[in-house]
Formats: sequence, structure tokens, C-alpha cells
Amino acid sequence: MTDPLVRKHDGTFHWEGVDVLAYKQDGAAPFKDVTRQVLFDDASMATQLRYFEVAPGGWTTLERHEHVHNVMVIRGRGRCLVGEAAWDIGPNDLVAVPPLAWHQFRAADDEPLGFLCLVNRDRDRPQLPPEEIRGPLEGKLR
Amino acid sequence: MTDPLVRKHDGTFHWEGVDVLAYKQDGAAPFKDVTRQVLFDDASMATQLRYFEVAPGGWTTLERHEHVHNVMVIRGRGRCLVGEAAWDIGPNDLVAVPPLAWHQFRAADDEPLGFLCLVNRDRDRPQLPPEEIRGPLEGKLR
Repeated sequence: MTDPLVRKHDGTFHWEGVDVLAYKQDGAAPFKDVTRQVLFDDASMATQLRYFEVAPGGWTTLERHEHVHNVMVIRGRGRCLVGEAAWDIGPNDLVAVPPLAWHQFRAADDEPLGFLCLVNRDRDRPQLPPEEIRGPLEGKLR
Repeated sequence: MTDPLVRKHDGTFHWEGVDVLAYKQDGAAPFKDVTRQVLFDDASMATQLRYFEVAPGGWTTLERHEHVHNVMVIRGRGRCLVGEAAWDIGPNDLVAVPPLAWHQFRAADDEPLGFLCLVNRDRDRPQLPPEEIRGPLEGKLR
């Protein structure tokens, strides 16, 4: 075992030995003020658990894919779009993103939105929407 | 889709449409004051995400198995044993339980201990320790 068995949370949504990573490569897709931390990535597990944090006013990429997301909010507030509906979300709320559902997460203007996202290790790449879909869907989160 | 896409947390670690279940069948193994809720159990995911809550003074079964547990505390405080070492744990701390490591979770006397536990859907059954191992290991959590 090289990884420690217990990794303490420091009170600010950072963990011992867990790096804060770029959400995506710059320019790969539209997004604003999102970071990514990989909390569990065990070779014997078929899924990975990541923590994403969206800064106040920020938003994730509107996208879809065959693989499912299982999400739990653990910090702050915001809104999510799944398919064609939008919801207000806050601490400990659960969000399931089904195959090929367009989805996006947006933080409140005055609070970050931090969430766990469970995903299969082996997964397809996200698809981006055409502009005529993107505009109306993103409008539902504003 | 029969399951709702968003399941709200009610502020008391219960979720819309999620039942509070027995931790284990009574008499199957020693434990005290533990409940289980299945938060995500998606057929397209190879893992399940469960929420366990240990009432103040309660404890989970001391056991081990080949499959790995990935744990995040989301409520309260307590202690955990993994292998032969024990740690104080609290909100958002991460615990990795490797294959065949003896492990147990114990709530503080005055606070519950609630944690997420990610586990492969296909997994082996837990093994219980002989008494001469159980006593000394459980002593590390008191």
C-alpha cells in the first residue's frame, strides 16, 4: 500500500495527498471556474469517485454521453440541468444522469457548488451540443 | 426511467424515495445501532453507493473481505479501525479499506457517525474474526 488508508479533509474541501486538477484541458469545451479532485481511483473498483467544485457563478460543460453519472452535492448551492428539466440543488442532494441526457451544473452567484461524481472507469467521451440546443438548455439554469 | 433524476436530502440524512434498511440481518454478526440506505444502485454501474449511519455509541461489525471499501464520512464523528491501526474521523474524511484488512467503524458517544461506502456490486461475503483477534482489535476503537 503506497496510498494512506485515511486521508483527512482539511475543512476547505481539500484532502491530504489529493491534488486539485484542471476540470478539462483549456479550450476543449466551454466551462467556467471548475476544478477536479480524484478521491478514489482504486484499480480493483470499476468506478472512480471524483469531487468537482464550481466557483460562484461558474458552470460545467453542457454535454452528454452513454455512461451514467451518480452525483451527491457536498458543498454550497446551485442548479443542475438533466435532460430538459432543471432543479435547485444543495447539500446532500442526489442527482442521477442517465445515458445520453444533456446535463450541466451551475453554482449560485454567491456560493460555490461542490459535488461528488461517481463514474465508470471505462467510459465513452462526452458529446457537445449544437448551438441551437445549447442556448435554450443553458437558459434553464439562469 | 422510473427513478427520479433528483432526490432531495431532507436535512436529516434521509432522501426522497430512499428506504432506511437494517444494516444486517439480526444475529448474523455482532453490531450495535447501525442503519443502511442505498443511494445509488444503477445496473449500468459496477459499484453501489450506500449510506451507513451508526448511532452515538454504536459500532459496525468487525470483519474483513477481499473486496475494497471506499468510504467518505458525511455526518458526525467517530473512529475507524483499518488493519491494525485506528484513526479519529469526522466530516469529509476519506477511508480506504484494502483487501482482507480487518475494519470497524464506531460512532462517538455523543454524536452519530454517518458515512458513504462505495463497493463493487459483485463482491465476496465478509469473514468474522476469531475471538482472540476480535477483542484486541475492538479495544483500539475505545
